[in-house]
Amino acid sequence: VAGQIQIDRLYTLADFEAAANQQLNFMASEYLKAGIAGEVTLRENRAAFERLRLLPRLFEDVSAIDTRLTLFGREHASPILLAPVGYQKIFHPEGELASVEGGNLSNTTFISATFASFTIEDICLRAKRPAWFQIYVQNDRGFTQELINRGVTSGCEAICITADTPVNGPRERELRAGFHLPPGVERANLRSLGSTLANAPHRNIYTPIRAANVTWKDLEWIRSICKVKLLVKGILNPKDAVRAVECDVDGIIVSNHGGRGLDTVPATIDALPAVAEAVSDRVPILMDSGIRRGTDVYQALANGATAVLIGRPYLHGLAVAGAAGVARVMEILRTELEMTMGLMGRARLSDISTQTGL
Amino acid sequence: VAGQIQIDRLYTLADFEAAANQQLNFMASEYLKAGIAGEVTLRENRAAFERLRLLPRLFEDVSAIDTRLTLFGREHASPILLAPVGYQKIFHPEGELASVEGGNLSNTTFISATFASFTIEDICLRAKRPAWFQIYVQNDRGFTQELINRGVTSGCEAICITADTPVNGPRERELRAGFHLPPGVERANLRSLGSTLANAPHRNIYTPIRAANVTWKDLEWIRSICKVKLLVKGILNPKDAVRAVECDVDGIIVSNHGGRGLDTVPATIDALPAVAEAVSDRVPILMDSGIRRGTDVYQALANGATAVLIGRPYLHGLAVAGAAGVARVMEILRTELEMTMGLMGRARLSDISTQTGL
Amino acid sequence: VAGQIQIDRLYTLADFEAAANQQLNFMASEYLKAGIAGEVTLRENRAAFERLRLLPRLFEDVSAIDTRLTLFGREHASPILLAPVGYQKIFHPEGELASVEGGNLSNTTFISATFASFTIEDICLRAKRPAWFQIYVQNDRGFTQELINRGVTSGCEAICITADTPVNGPRERELRAGFHLPPGVERANLRSLGSTLANAPHRNIYTPIRAANVTWKDLEWIRSICKVKLLVKGILNPKDAVRAVECDVDGIIVSNHGGRGLDTVPATIDALPAVAEAVSDRVPILMDSGIRRGTDVYQALANGATAVLIGRPYLHGLAVAGAAGVARVMEILRTELEMTMGLMGRARLSDISTQTGL
Amino acid sequence: VAGQIQIDRLYTLADFEAAANQQLNFMASEYLKAGIAGEVTLRENRAAFERLRLLPRLFEDVSAIDTRLTLFGREHASPILLAPVGYQKIFHPEGELASVEGGNLSNTTFISATFASFTIEDICLRAKRPAWFQIYVQNDRGFTQELINRGVTSGCEAICITADTPVNGPRERELRAGFHLPPGVERANLRSLGSTLANAPHRNIYTPIRAANVTWKDLEWIRSICKVKLLVKGILNPKDAVRAVECDVDGIIVSNHGGRGLDTVPATIDALPAVAEAVSDRVPILMDSGIRRGTDVYQALANGATAVLIGRPYLHGLAVAGAAGVARVMEILRTELEMTMGLMGRARLSDISTQTGL
Repeated sequence: VAGQIQIDRLYTLADFEAAANQQLNFMASEYLKAGIAGEVTLRENRAAFERLRLLPRLFEDVSAIDTRLTLFGREHASPILLAPVGYQKIFHPEGELASVEGGNLSNTTFISATFASFTIEDICLRAKRPAWFQIYVQNDRGFTQELINRGVTSGCEAICITADTPVNGPRERELRAGFHLPPGVERANLRSLGSTLANAPHRNIYTPIRAANVTWKDLEWIRSICKVKLLVKGILNPKDAVRAVECDVDGIIVSNHGGRGLDTVPATIDALPAVAEAVSDRVPILMDSGIRRGTDVYQALANGATAVLIGRPYLHGLAVAGAAGVARVMEILRTELEMTMGLMGRARLSDISTQTGL
Repeated sequence: VAGQIQIDRLYTLADFEAAANQQLNFMASEYLKAGIAGEVTLRENRAAFERLRLLPRLFEDVSAIDTRLTLFGREHASPILLAPVGYQKIFHPEGELASVEGGNLSNTTFISATFASFTIEDICLRAKRPAWFQIYVQNDRGFTQELINRGVTSGCEAICITADTPVNGPRERELRAGFHLPPGVERANLRSLGSTLANAPHRNIYTPIRAANVTWKDLEWIRSICKVKLLVKGILNPKDAVRAVECDVDGIIVSNHGGRGLDTVPATIDALPAVAEAVSDRVPILMDSGIRRGTDVYQALANGATAVLIGRPYLHGLAVAGAAGVARVMEILRTELEMTMGLMGRARLSDISTQTGL
Repeated sequence: VAGQIQIDRLYTLADFEAAANQQLNFMASEYLKAGIAGEVTLRENRAAFERLRLLPRLFEDVSAIDTRLTLFGREHASPILLAPVGYQKIFHPEGELASVEGGNLSNTTFISATFASFTIEDICLRAKRPAWFQIYVQNDRGFTQELINRGVTSGCEAICITADTPVNGPRERELRAGFHLPPGVERANLRSLGSTLANAPHRNIYTPIRAANVTWKDLEWIRSICKVKLLVKGILNPKDAVRAVECDVDGIIVSNHGGRGLDTVPATIDALPAVAEAVSDRVPILMDSGIRRGTDVYQALANGATAVLIGRPYLHGLAVAGAAGVARVMEILRTELEMTMGLMGRARLSDISTQTGL
Repeated sequence: VAGQIQIDRLYTLADFEAAANQQLNFMASEYLKAGIAGEVTLRENRAAFERLRLLPRLFEDVSAIDTRLTLFGREHASPILLAPVGYQKIFHPEGELASVEGGNLSNTTFISATFASFTIEDICLRAKRPAWFQIYVQNDRGFTQELINRGVTSGCEAICITADTPVNGPRERELRAGFHLPPGVERANLRSLGSTLANAPHRNIYTPIRAANVTWKDLEWIRSICKVKLLVKGILNPKDAVRAVECDVDGIIVSNHGGRGLDTVPATIDALPAVAEAVSDRVPILMDSGIRRGTDVYQALANGATAVLIGRPYLHGLAVAGAAGVARVMEILRTELEMTMGLMGRARLSDISTQTGL
């Protein structure tokens, strides 16, 4: 009951972040905060949104604001999805099972991570609407194929190939916090490869970098074996976006891995317009990294995105109140988007024009 | 007497703000400070003025500086009016009655809010010069018409339609301060609708958004029934300004609601030039949001405004010393404008050219 | 002797400022720090210099760096003069007499202020090289003429007409510090007008503004009666610069009164290039406001100035150690200029080209 | 052993800096931190890197990242060399001998300073791969020639002429810390000139500036007598770069002396592109000043550099753990570069294109 009272006084995603940081242990909160290296991109993800300006239109009929989005034929309560994040048991005992339940409650899509602490099968069992499955392409192509098959068999509607981490590197904030997988948290999807990989210690700077030899040919191969929707996640360069479209993907996710990939890459909202221009409406563009406000969601859409993903914010909700916390975070953000649309004079998502800039 | 001494040592509007914050309780001062959401626009309203530069002309005869403005046929001591702000009893027991008295003393126009804590009739009884009446268009058109009629009957010279809040949203700073209407403070103009609406609790994020279906057609209708001057308040977009002029309004108020409407919209001083160019002198343009210095007033005029409104600053004056405080704030700002005009080499308002930029 | 030791450990103008602030009483140090209003221009005067970049040339022969400047036929140790500042007795018992002695020691020109605490006659008696005399044109033209005559008779080589203060305004920092003329400090040059004016209390915001009716015609008249060099001080606008040259002045001083005149005017180093282009070498251009480093002096010269004035920095020297302090400040700045010239590969002032930007 | 543990927890160059500052006495740490004057350029060296953005390419084969560089026919583990810094005994008893050993361990080149605390002969004895020798051209040309001969005889592969300090000036941070050569630290290479010069007290602002008359003719002469590779260090101006190439040098080092030369010159990464365009691949360009991250090294290469030098960072390593500390710093930076290359999709240095910007 105390928790219930508390959640009523969390008015914004920033409030949830503060509450989560109080609740989590140091290692967990540092892991969630961490960006790569000097965290230039992490900060820039927020700063870029704060630099953008909205220019409203008045005297529009906004008596029936509608934030619903149909994506790949399925209705979402809003153009806001739940991004793939690994090891969610670190934040709440129910981990991804609570998050996918939050997605159910919020009428939106949950995207499971390869490094989820529950298997994709267990997660899909809890999903009332099809989840998506994020996959790190493994040097072992057989296992990549196995992962895709397991996702599809479990009912996933889409596969997201994360392309922005061909090499492994440490995040210093994690190193300083002594980050490790706590007892009971494992890479559940990797169990079939043996406990070694499922429970392998976290990477460290002095570990030799194990870099991938994954190329566009692999993406073509994945496309050929993937019978559900296929998206590529982690694109910032318009040339890569065009190439991905030419590989017949169904969607693109503009992302800098929440500032956790390569430092000093642009904020996604700054990278988005050029990608959108290059893609030119051939496939939907999603984006993540830095979304904390309804005005951010609006800006993403006005700059060419069809939808956005949030990551850390829903994990703050998860840490504070499990599935209900996830759902509350989603509702706050959706309501803020609704208010932004009303104040901008656009009652429907399709009224948000990238032609006029806004 | 102690208060009298104190006021003599308040040299700037910032001094009045500090003094008011000492005097007011936390809820009241937070309510007055509050911007919407992340308060990006609230900060930008000030930052934009600090970025602008003035370039003086020397050796002009400034022995007779004249800040007087004739607006809609009526003389004002300066191009500075008193903006509509609701619930003024929160700041001083006499509330709007003291503010309108401050307007009398300062020889300028007071604009009453729909959500004033006194009725428009009571306020107009105290006004030695005609007040203006700000109106939120209600979904109940009959009540809108009633409000207009009451204003005109009471002697108001102009009606200002606030157009920038078609939906209601919360301000987190208010939520955190537990803002509510204190006992004895009500929306006096709404009494005829019953005590429920007059005393309704303050909006909250979890209140379903009640969005307006007010459109340009409504503005045309208001124009047709409004026999006094009609202004639209809250314009930032040049296209809306043109459309409003085509609806035959008598003036436009460029405003972002003091940073309380939609976050991340531009500072008004940044939005003003494009609006002014679009309006092209067909009607007077007023502006508010962020004015704290005589140089700000000058910049507004040099960028196309005929006059400005101040809001928070005169409420600081009200909180500190009632009507006398309001008048002192107005006099400080007027004197600063006078000094700016002298140092710029422009003795009359008409010497402030938007042609040359300054 | 202790003072002597102290001065040896003051390595920069910033060190002198800190030492002076320790030594002076609050009222005096606040008076010296004060800019007008929000002190935007005061800060900008420094920030603008920090934004500018120097691009050196290497392998130039800089074995004989020469900072000497001949101005109006007279050699100066460096292109750095002592700006007019009033009431110097506030900072040191010997006031302007010590400062002019500092000019003697530094082989540079001291410019006396109208509001000096010693008469121009007393000051010129101490000057081993001709001083200049800064004059606020008075509404009483007869007294203006008397001042000019007294300056010329006393041996002044030039008259500087301050043009940027046609109206009087307060500086809030001074008001807050309760600034007033201490006993024994007077406007000595105004004694002939009676003790009232010589000792009049300091201006205050609620004093009605007494604005000047001084115009270009007055400047022409002054030119006609002034048989020594004539400069106009306070120009920021290129049009005013051209007009002044057309009035046959001998020089122009680009200044924003050290940020004490009108707030939000540009930093002088930002205003300088356009003025220099408009003047096009017809008369020497001096500038002040914000010079604290040898690189600043260099930038001023590279942007079109013939020489610079310093104000506050030499008063810090005066406060710390009288004439010796003034001389030390001048020597530090001259040495820093020498080092800058050496590192830039320009051994002579004439090598500093405005053609190449640097 | 305790030290060994400590070094394992230093994950970045910033960690080494903090650890070194704990270990060093105040005078030594201040000496190492010091930039010239207001330290504008010192700060800008970092700020400029943080402003730059990287734009990755995905799905490239990065399974075999190779950071090796062949420079002047010799393989380096990475394009990162050890910059010349004097008086290294201040930071560690073994001084330059430990640093050159760090170079051996890291398979990179150590550049000895003229003002090393060991002789070039002693240093070269410890070098397992040829060192380079940085030389301040002395007004005594005979001694310059002697230094070059000693370097070449000792086995140096290249001579670097530092060109950006034709005059001597103080750094205030050093003056305030009372910087002096501690007992046992001398300019070992200057012993042949007598102990006076080898142990001369540190320069001071009140020392008359002793400026060099070294010109391009001297560089031509040095070229004629120098039978090994010849580089000029300290170039920021593209015109100087072209002139140096015309003097037949073998390489250019873009540098602002780590912010210790002339204040307000550009960050080297900002100066680099114009120099690279002017040089147009005729000779390799090296750069230093501000490199702290693998992304910085990458940006330097993407903006036209063939390699970079680091200075302060390896001295932090030296202070913390001698040769092992130097090697660790080098390995961290090399690994960060490796990760950057992987995440950028460039497996070889030659894939880093200045044509595409990145």
